Formats: sequence, structure tokens, C-alpha cells
Amino acid sequence: MEILEQIAQEAEQNTQVPAYPRSVEKVIAAVMSSPNFWKIVDLSDEPLPLVAEILKLLNKRDLVVFEGNQILLTEAGAELAKKLGIEPFASHRCPTCNGRGVVIDDSLRPAFEKFLEIQKNRPPAIHQYDQGYVTPENTFARVALADDRGDLRGKKVCVLGDDDLMSIALALTGLPARVTILEIDERLVNFIKEVSDKYGLNIDARVHDLRQPLPEDVVGAYDTFFTDPPETVEAIKAFVGRGVATLKGPRCAGYFGVTRRESSLDKWARIQKVLLDMGLVITDLLHNFNEYVNWDYYQEMRGWQLTPVKEPPKEIWYKSTQFRVETIRGFKGFNEPIVGDIYNDAESSTT
Amino acid sequence: MEILEQIAQEAEQNTQVPAYPRSVEKVIAAVMSSPNFWKIVDLSDEPLPLVAEILKLLNKRDLVVFEGNQILLTEAGAELAKKLGIEPFASHRCPTCNGRGVVIDDSLRPAFEKFLEIQKNRPPAIHQYDQGYVTPENTFARVALADDRGDLRGKKVCVLGDDDLMSIALALTGLPARVTILEIDERLVNFIKEVSDKYGLNIDARVHDLRQPLPEDVVGAYDTFFTDPPETVEAIKAFVGRGVATLKGPRCAGYFGVTRRESSLDKWARIQKVLLDMGLVITDLLHNFNEYVNWDYYQEMRGWQLTPVKEPPKEIWYKSTQFRVETIRGFKGFNEPIVGDIYNDAESSTT
Repeated sequence: MEILEQIAQEAEQNTQVPAYPRSVEKVIAAVMSSPNFWKIVDLSDEPLPLVAEILKLLNKRDLVVFEGNQILLTEAGAELAKKLGIEPFASHRCPTCNGRGVVIDDSLRPAFEKFLEIQKNRPPAIHQYDQGYVTPENTFARVALADDRGDLRGKKVCVLGDDDLMSIALALTGLPARVTILEIDERLVNFIKEVSDKYGLNIDARVHDLRQPLPEDVVGAYDTFFTDPPETVEAIKAFVGRGVATLKGPRCAGYFGVTRRESSLDKWARIQKVLLDMGLVITDLLHNFNEYVNWDYYQEMRGWQLTPVKEPPKEIWYKSTQFRVETIRGFKGFNEPIVGDIYNDAESSTT
Repeated sequence: MEILEQIAQEAEQNTQVPAYPRSVEKVIAAVMSSPNFWKIVDLSDEPLPLVAEILKLLNKRDLVVFEGNQILLTEAGAELAKKLGIEPFASHRCPTCNGRGVVIDDSLRPAFEKFLEIQKNRPPAIHQYDQGYVTPENTFARVALADDRGDLRGKKVCVLGDDDLMSIALALTGLPARVTILEIDERLVNFIKEVSDKYGLNIDARVHDLRQPLPEDVVGAYDTFFTDPPETVEAIKAFVGRGVATLKGPRCAGYFGVTRRESSLDKWARIQKVLLDMGLVITDLLHNFNEYVNWDYYQEMRGWQLTPVKEPPKEIWYKSTQFRVETIRGFKGFNEPIVGDIYNDAESSTT
């Protein structure tokens, strides 16, 4: 049996994450591109637990070596790569928009500059609520995207869970007719309320546990929603479903991120089926649009136990694909209570 | 009944294209942004036959007026827009990459410049084969995208139908291990062969009617495919299915465009279900990535009969969303003969 196939099968057995010869190939290509574990996870675009396992199996076969915190191909590894025609990754990412396709242009800049100042005092991300926020540029790039797609001007917008401070960014532009946020973390709700009062933003900020059904007045009342669900199929069904339940009718839009760091493409396929079954159509999928600022609790997360070398991440490695969906005729949200643990599966690593 | 709902229902009855109050809203917002019919189709992102019908219905109600070739809101139309909070479209599209997220950077520039010269002598697009090609920048941006995603270096690439001259662009970079094209139009195959000989590109170019099953040696032999299917659900199933049938295994990639100009989002949802049912997962959806050079046969196409004003398009108006898909375990291509007319439905307008 071919060696990539062999390693893929063993890795899948050990992790319960779908693994392919191409997964192993991607990890090798990533090692050829960077010696840093977090960068290798980033480039290979495979779930962290799988990347960690593949690296260990490559190491066991003397194809990869761990030198201090560096991960390197051995001579045998380099020969194998050459034989199989594996090459390092190349990037053609646009330097102006960082690959996002939209920019924070002059019309958005004054609001963005206010936002930069305001977010400096934000509460830190905490493990209890599985938090982790994107860069301020990223938050505003989402605003630019949603405005570019016609989803903000004169629209009512609902934000479900808001460690990214989308509500503040949205309200600062003055574009939406109304901005509501539902968030479990009182620290965040208080922060957003204070900012809203100070800057006259009129944000409707409420403490709400999204595992519970939505407040009645929020159901079927919005044009656009934003959320950032945990990375299991059940969680995406539940939290995106909540978002959909806030929408007033067909052809309203929803925005959320799904990562490859904690989700195989097999899981992605199941997620996409769930979205279509809800009466949604996917209009945009923007790879690595979302970039998460490294959080402080990395040593508490499952991924840290799995890493073959123990170096804290320095650069941003946790990214996600930005989804935009629209409702069509017959769409159906989800507003039942959410019970049981829907936050964990074999592919997750940051919980 | 609300007026937007009324117009949507009447438009749907007359065109058999799904129409929503939001569709009418988008057409009004587009008229507020431009007086040009083709730009209105472009901005509203609704199928051409539907946009044309909605404009006629707005005109019948004295909300829109046709003055020469200009399409304008009447005073009553402007009042309605104000009352409903409809605003013109805003764009935050990145000026560097034209919203594509990838750029033709220094590493690709020499090949791109050769391509610019070569394509000047390309055969013109003809109606017989439903042709229409993208700009040369666009063809090369697709190369940049596929290389950025790791789908070209050392890979075998199959192009199914090639009025965009993807095969020449791909081969000029020297990145793929092999480039094969299958194309019904002998003019194109001969042109590609001549260029391949002159520049030593080693392109495997074959005359092939894609309605027939693939040549045996092409089945299951490639890493990556490109195609540009006609815009019906059946055609996408058949032609993307052909592309999938060329792939060697799971986690190989396919690239193709789907437009909004000839497809409602309801049709998009059916298309996305077909893709998932084939064992594909959608990894990228890049809005308006593809821009088609205006073709000469516009007066022969169905859309021309439908336009409320008869002005030829000057700027690019026909755009499409770039899809990237990957195969996962259990994927299944389509290699049966294609019978019957699968090129037309109520939403098509350029055939």
C-alpha cells in the first residue's frame, strides 16, 4: 500500500477524523513551507487533531523530525516529497484586502477609526464561553462585505453572540435601522451598553443564553443576522437555525464563519446539507476571511495536549471561512431549547 | 396587499421565475444606482427575464419611466423608495484584485503577459456553441486562485470546454504536470494546438462533444478540472458531473462558474443540492469573480427580446460566481450520454 494511504488510514484510526492521502500530502507541503506547528495547521487546512497525528506518524517513519520547536522534513522526507511531486504552498492572496475581496474604504474609515479606539478596552476572551474574537480590521471587513451585498442600509440586524463586537461596528456606521445583540456574557453586554450610551449608538443589547429559545419579539423581526457558531454539525444547526429564526422572510441574509481548523471537509459537507435543508442557499464562501486574535487560554484547550512541540502560537493561525446565506421560499429556522453537549466532537481542539 | 409583493407575484406569473418582494426592492435600488438596463441587471443580481419584467410592471404603475435608453424612477417611484427605506447600492469591492481576493503577482506576470499577446488572435465567441469568454485578467485570476489553493503544482489538470483559453494560461505558467482540454469547437482546438506547438506548451487538446461520454483514458485520471457549464440544473449536473468523472480520487478539486443573470437563488439551491449529492463539498464561492467580455451575438439571444429599452451593452454586465468544490469519500461523477435539450429553462436569456 502506498505510504500516504497508509499514514492516512492510521491517522484516521487514531483520531476518528476523516483522513485522505491528500491530507498527508498537504501536511508535507505545509512542513516544506514552514517549520512552525501553528503555521503548518494553517497552511494544510486540515483539522488540528489530524495534523498533529499525521506529524507524529511522519516522525515515527523518520520522514519528519522535531528539533526544539521546529518541525522539519528529514532527508528521507524530502526525497519522498520529490518522488511524489509535492511542492510547498504558494500564495497569490491580494495584499490590499488580505484576500477578503472587500476593503474598509473612505466611506467606512471614520467609523472604523472610532471602533479601533473603542475595542481597546474590550473584555478579554474567556474559555468558559468558548470565546475568541477576530481582529478589528476583520470585524469591519464583515461590515464592508454585508454593506456591499446590500444587507445593512435601512435594515434591522441581529447579532447572536458578540465577542467580535459586530454590534458596535455596525452601529458606528449609522447604516442599519436597528441593531440588536443577544449574548450570554454579562461582561460583553455591559461593555456594549456603555459604549452605546457614550456614543449614542442605540444598540439593543440583551443578556440571553442562546441555548434557550429566542425572546418573542426577536423572532421573525430582522433582515440580517450575524453569528459565530461552535464547530459541530449540531451546534451549527442550532445556532445558525436561531439566526434564521430571527429573519422576517425569504431573501434575508445570514453571516457566520466555519473553520477548517476544527472541521474536516466531510463535516463541511454535512454542515452544507443542514444549511440547504433549512431552506438556505449559500451565496458566498470566503476562504480565511476571518482571523482570530490568539487567546490567552490556549494551554487549557484540547489542541495544546495534541501538539507535537509545545510552542505557544505567535502569529494568527486560527482562521475561518466566511459564509453568507440567503433564505428562500419555505425556509425554516430553529427555536427549540438546545439540550446536551453540542460543543465537542473528534475534530474540535479549542474547547 | 403590499405593492412589492403584488409586483413580485405578477412578475413570477408572467416569467415563471421565482420572485420576491426583495427582488423588486433590489431592482428599485439598482434603478436608483444606474439608468442603464445592463447595469441594473448586474446590480440587482436577479435573472435578466425577471428584471426586465419587474421594470415593465414598475413602468405600468408609473413608478419607473423609460426615457430614450434611460431607466429612471418617477417622482412616485422615488417617494415609494423613500417610504420603504430602499437605498442605492454601495460597493466596497477591493480595487486591487477587483474583489477576487487573489492577484496576478510577480511570479505569474511573465506568463500573463505572454497570454495577453496570444489571446488577441482567439476565435470570436459564437452562438452555435453558447460561447462567451471571460477577460484575460479573469482567466489568469482563476490560475492564481487554483495555485493559491494548491491545485496546480505537479497536478494533472483537465479543462472541459475552453473558450476562456484556460489551457493556454495554465500551461504558460509551467506549473501543472499535464493539461488536457476537451472542446467541441474545432476552431478553438486548432487555435490551442497552434499556440501549444509554437510555445512548446505540450497541451493535450482534443475535439470532443461533451454530451458524449469522456474518452476512456481521461476518466479518473486528473487532480483538478475546470469547466463553465450552461445554466440549468440538468446541465450543471451533467457537465460538472463530467468534470468529476475525470478526477482520480477524493480531495481533488473542481472549478466552474454559476451566474445570477440566468439563475434565481431558488435554482442555486437546487444546484447546490446536486453538488452535495455528487459527493462534493463547496469550499469557495466568489461573487462576481468572472466577468464576460460582451459577445457579438447579443441581438440573437432571448434576453434581447425582453429588454424594455434596446441599447446594446457597453460595459461588462454578465458576471458569475466562481465555485470551487472538492470531492470527498463516496463521490460520484457522471459519464452517461446527455440527451435532450438541457440548455434552456425559464430563467435563461443568453441562449
